[in-house]
Amino acid sequence: MRADGRRKLTMDDIKAAADRLKNWGRWGADDEIGTLNHTRPADVAAAARCVRSGRVHSLALPFDRSGPQGGKTNYPALGRFNPVHVMLRTGTDAYAGRLDHRKIRASDDMVIMPMQCGTQWDALAHVFYENSMWNGYDCRNVTSNGAAKCGIEKTREKMVGRGVLLDIGRLVGLASLPDGFAIGRDLLDRAESHFGVKVGRGDYLLVRTGHMERKLADGNWDGYSGGDAPGLAFDTLDWMQEKQIAAIATDTWGVEVRPCETDAVNQPLHWIAIPMMGLTLGEIFYLAELATECAADHRYDFMFVAPALPVTGAVGSPVNPLAIR
Amino acid sequence: MRADGRRKLTMDDIKAAADRLKNWGRWGADDEIGTLNHTRPADVAAAARCVRSGRVHSLALPFDRSGPQGGKTNYPALGRFNPVHVMLRTGTDAYAGRLDHRKIRASDDMVIMPMQCGTQWDALAHVFYENSMWNGYDCRNVTSNGAAKCGIEKTREKMVGRGVLLDIGRLVGLASLPDGFAIGRDLLDRAESHFGVKVGRGDYLLVRTGHMERKLADGNWDGYSGGDAPGLAFDTLDWMQEKQIAAIATDTWGVEVRPCETDAVNQPLHWIAIPMMGLTLGEIFYLAELATECAADHRYDFMFVAPALPVTGAVGSPVNPLAIR
Amino acid sequence: MRADGRRKLTMDDIKAAADRLKNWGRWGADDEIGTLNHTRPADVAAAARCVRSGRVHSLALPFDRSGPQGGKTNYPALGRFNPVHVMLRTGTDAYAGRLDHRKIRASDDMVIMPMQCGTQWDALAHVFYENSMWNGYDCRNVTSNGAAKCGIEKTREKMVGRGVLLDIGRLVGLASLPDGFAIGRDLLDRAESHFGVKVGRGDYLLVRTGHMERKLADGNWDGYSGGDAPGLAFDTLDWMQEKQIAAIATDTWGVEVRPCETDAVNQPLHWIAIPMMGLTLGEIFYLAELATECAADHRYDFMFVAPALPVTGAVGSPVNPLAIR
Amino acid sequence: MRADGRRKLTMDDIKAAADRLKNWGRWGADDEIGTLNHTRPADVAAAARCVRSGRVHSLALPFDRSGPQGGKTNYPALGRFNPVHVMLRTGTDAYAGRLDHRKIRASDDMVIMPMQCGTQWDALAHVFYENSMWNGYDCRNVTSNGAAKCGIEKTREKMVGRGVLLDIGRLVGLASLPDGFAIGRDLLDRAESHFGVKVGRGDYLLVRTGHMERKLADGNWDGYSGGDAPGLAFDTLDWMQEKQIAAIATDTWGVEVRPCETDAVNQPLHWIAIPMMGLTLGEIFYLAELATECAADHRYDFMFVAPALPVTGAVGSPVNPLAIR
Repeated sequence: MRADGRRKLTMDDIKAAADRLKNWGRWGADDEIGTLNHTRPADVAAAARCVRSGRVHSLALPFDRSGPQGGKTNYPALGRFNPVHVMLRTGTDAYAGRLDHRKIRASDDMVIMPMQCGTQWDALAHVFYENSMWNGYDCRNVTSNGAAKCGIEKTREKMVGRGVLLDIGRLVGLASLPDGFAIGRDLLDRAESHFGVKVGRGDYLLVRTGHMERKLADGNWDGYSGGDAPGLAFDTLDWMQEKQIAAIATDTWGVEVRPCETDAVNQPLHWIAIPMMGLTLGEIFYLAELATECAADHRYDFMFVAPALPVTGAVGSPVNPLAIR
Repeated sequence: MRADGRRKLTMDDIKAAADRLKNWGRWGADDEIGTLNHTRPADVAAAARCVRSGRVHSLALPFDRSGPQGGKTNYPALGRFNPVHVMLRTGTDAYAGRLDHRKIRASDDMVIMPMQCGTQWDALAHVFYENSMWNGYDCRNVTSNGAAKCGIEKTREKMVGRGVLLDIGRLVGLASLPDGFAIGRDLLDRAESHFGVKVGRGDYLLVRTGHMERKLADGNWDGYSGGDAPGLAFDTLDWMQEKQIAAIATDTWGVEVRPCETDAVNQPLHWIAIPMMGLTLGEIFYLAELATECAADHRYDFMFVAPALPVTGAVGSPVNPLAIR
Repeated sequence: MRADGRRKLTMDDIKAAADRLKNWGRWGADDEIGTLNHTRPADVAAAARCVRSGRVHSLALPFDRSGPQGGKTNYPALGRFNPVHVMLRTGTDAYAGRLDHRKIRASDDMVIMPMQCGTQWDALAHVFYENSMWNGYDCRNVTSNGAAKCGIEKTREKMVGRGVLLDIGRLVGLASLPDGFAIGRDLLDRAESHFGVKVGRGDYLLVRTGHMERKLADGNWDGYSGGDAPGLAFDTLDWMQEKQIAAIATDTWGVEVRPCETDAVNQPLHWIAIPMMGLTLGEIFYLAELATECAADHRYDFMFVAPALPVTGAVGSPVNPLAIR
Repeated sequence: MRADGRRKLTMDDIKAAADRLKNWGRWGADDEIGTLNHTRPADVAAAARCVRSGRVHSLALPFDRSGPQGGKTNYPALGRFNPVHVMLRTGTDAYAGRLDHRKIRASDDMVIMPMQCGTQWDALAHVFYENSMWNGYDCRNVTSNGAAKCGIEKTREKMVGRGVLLDIGRLVGLASLPDGFAIGRDLLDRAESHFGVKVGRGDYLLVRTGHMERKLADGNWDGYSGGDAPGLAFDTLDWMQEKQIAAIATDTWGVEVRPCETDAVNQPLHWIAIPMMGLTLGEIFYLAELATECAADHRYDFMFVAPALPVTGAVGSPVNPLAIR
């Protein structure tokens, strides 16, 4: 039994969900983008019509050494680190007269970053179910040389559509949902009716828990990356399948509730969402300002544009998602 | 005299342009984004109304080892290199049973990349005029620790607006303009009338030369990065100032024509555009498919969304620019 | 006054030391290695004669994510991080049959590391005195492009000679000297006589405080890198000058005692040792096992070989120093 | 048949060598360093007695962007690149007054480098024979997380002993042996007698072909890394086994002759030397100056100290090998 009185998931539950929600072949045997197919050009055109004031909100955390990696949790570290940004030429070089042989004074720089160090998309090559990934591709397609199938570059002309925010923190009346709080499908339904918005086919669903804001207020990321968190319950997989959303993103590290709803596996929602459903997950999205705006004018949909960086063979991508209202 | 019969620019010409086109203070003493201010929310809303079919075009090259860095040119190398994408966990690790202690089979990865290795935005901290950068900030604000002023992260809610393509290659009737071909303001005017589109305040101007397509067809990037190229003439600075564009991007390595129109400095257009005008430059944009689409339906404007990755203190950013039609 | 009753150093003390100990020009106007010149070939030959049993001791910490970077201290962070070692090809790739197209199954890898992330040499380009570095070179020789003067690669055929261990922890009878413990020249003299060894011209002096062992025993590096520590007092600079040692290395992060013996500057010993004396410093040396061995047979000298990695223009180098007894 | 009239190796030859030369278990079931065990402490002490003048020769190429990676060959690229050395703080920052808040003016830096980008040791975890590595360890011990067995850090107190140079280029009378020149065991025997030196148990054997000097003279590394080269013939494996050497290093990219002596596999000598014999290979050693010195005084043995950087789990290491004469 879980702390909230619900029974824990078993391996059988997970297997049943894998069978029930499996979308392999749904968009052809050679598909590599899964539910992103739910958004059609006409949906993009409709999304553009959501733009009224023209205000743009970035949903990205800054990419720098103050980022969410490196905090302590109760779980083994994954080895991700915050971006290391280094300069290749500087204004101080210019000032010191050391660039003038080029006849132009210009700075230059580079970055070293895990693809999933901050605000980020998971590619469908990110999680495997047994020896398979999305659409039944063999997991051996992802070698040290990168992902030969389902790499993030396959999404380069996706990640555009109607965005819908379901602000569960606000719905429940808490600045932040507590760690371990499981957002069930019932709560998603209630949020739709409370906020007067319907999630539809091809939408990009953003779910706010307040978790990130809690950590930002603390000035300390301990417990955030890979730690306990509020998040989606396993039963929302069916809801998302029915709704035919394009993708889901949250203000947490890993979309789903932690501690996990089961001891059988780690991150059960990931087991099903990515390799079986082909559902793209977005994580570490900064939703605070957008939520405030939406609450102010009671409008919870907008145009959403969040293009992944098409790094060939990458299994994730940092992103600066924009909500355009 | 230049090969095309025009006289070479002198240092006096450059200084005169610096005085004439200087926008310092125009958007306040603490502004860090320059001409991106030309685009107002209402312009974004209007841009969204350019979306009709909902088709999305990525204007990014793939970010990988086949990228444009590393080719040979007649000029000294800048030290940029193609992205190095490396895996932190793989599907082969999964297959070998080496991830199962985590109770989830997931891959992970990272990238090492110059901010300007591929399709990219220059930040206003990228080029200095003497000891100053945009808006008069001291160049010493850009140290090994990054850009304290005018870093790319200041643009995180910009790079959205109406995009306009001026396809000069098509106008002139060449698959690719030859290296050294200077696109003057006259040609921009002709392109507007030829393609039936007017560049206006706050627009994102894309200029196609065909240079990138020539290199892609060759299967060899020699001469592209830092080499000779077609590009904008120095006199287009005044045109862009008058038009009040938000930013300009091209399918070349460096926007402006090379060899340079002067021996006095390297990249004279950069000297003025970035630090004096505060004009953001986009480079290495892939415009081939967009150009074909625009020609097909004779419509050269679209919604343009190209959010920079907000790496704190960065002087440029890789980007996946989207044209949404 | 300091906690140990000694008066704090003033800026005048530092300036006086700079004048008194300045070795500029001593080995010619174009010298870039300073006191490493004290070791002559005949000294190397003599050092080889210190080898008796042929036992080899590595004085390096492992270079990995368990290294000393990232711990918390009371001082601002320097931005160094532990090595990031990543694989380019793996045994799991081999097992999965994904390397066989090469007709050889081989793994490959790379590392991303600050030059001073672990056991390490400082190059003479590492510290400046006002606008100068060692031998009077202008500090502007060290740009984003690396050190044009006094880079670590200039030492590639040095770092070989007689090593002498002065085990101050053992002398004082403490497993680890406490933070803030200043080892003065008097204590170095006592150590020589206690351990029956004389430090001479061209020697590589190793000083053990037990600080590293304390942190290893704690299983926590907090406070080590850049934090308070036992270490050499400022007055040992004169002692080292008189002794004409080649270099000095310790089991601490920064050789000298911290908190600093002054409020006027940070790391006053560094101010003089590197740019004025041309004295090479070694840091984060693992001396525990060597100290035990020396104590066991009462022999505190040995052959010392610690070649820096000749990374062109580097201002430091990771190293695997060997004591050969 | 090969160009030199010898028949090509077959898979049967390779399998026979694997059986014949297999040293698994020879130094215990848990050994991870193979033939490095041949060198005993008394051999190290004897090696120290080879030091006479005390002159030190570095056998490392500079680690920088002029290194041997990136040249073109007729074979598929391995993805290695030259070191990327970047500064974290500079003398120009100091000059610009931007470091003074630290009360010390110091530069700092980092490096990004493949472990095998330049002068380097292979770890025994570098090559697999079928699904096994040295001593029978499962190849799945080398995951994206590094080598759990036979990593280079296991050698941290090795790579010290008597070095012997066999200068085959000089023996044959050529500045550089041509590509494809196979150095057979007969030639090694002739070299011993010609140069008056006997290779013995525990020695570090250096073989000079002149290949590197040819490329340095050309000012172009095309064809060096992974390309055709002179090198050891497959039959020298038995010779090295009989001699009981500790390790072998050459001035070529990959020790063995290329094109390979067989079409059946790539790098047949690697297949046997590393996983079956446990023989450590050193590559890209700079032997020009050492060879000149040895020729001058007719002395071809010396003390050899070449400590690997103990990067945990690494399958190779850059190194600055020293010959001390």
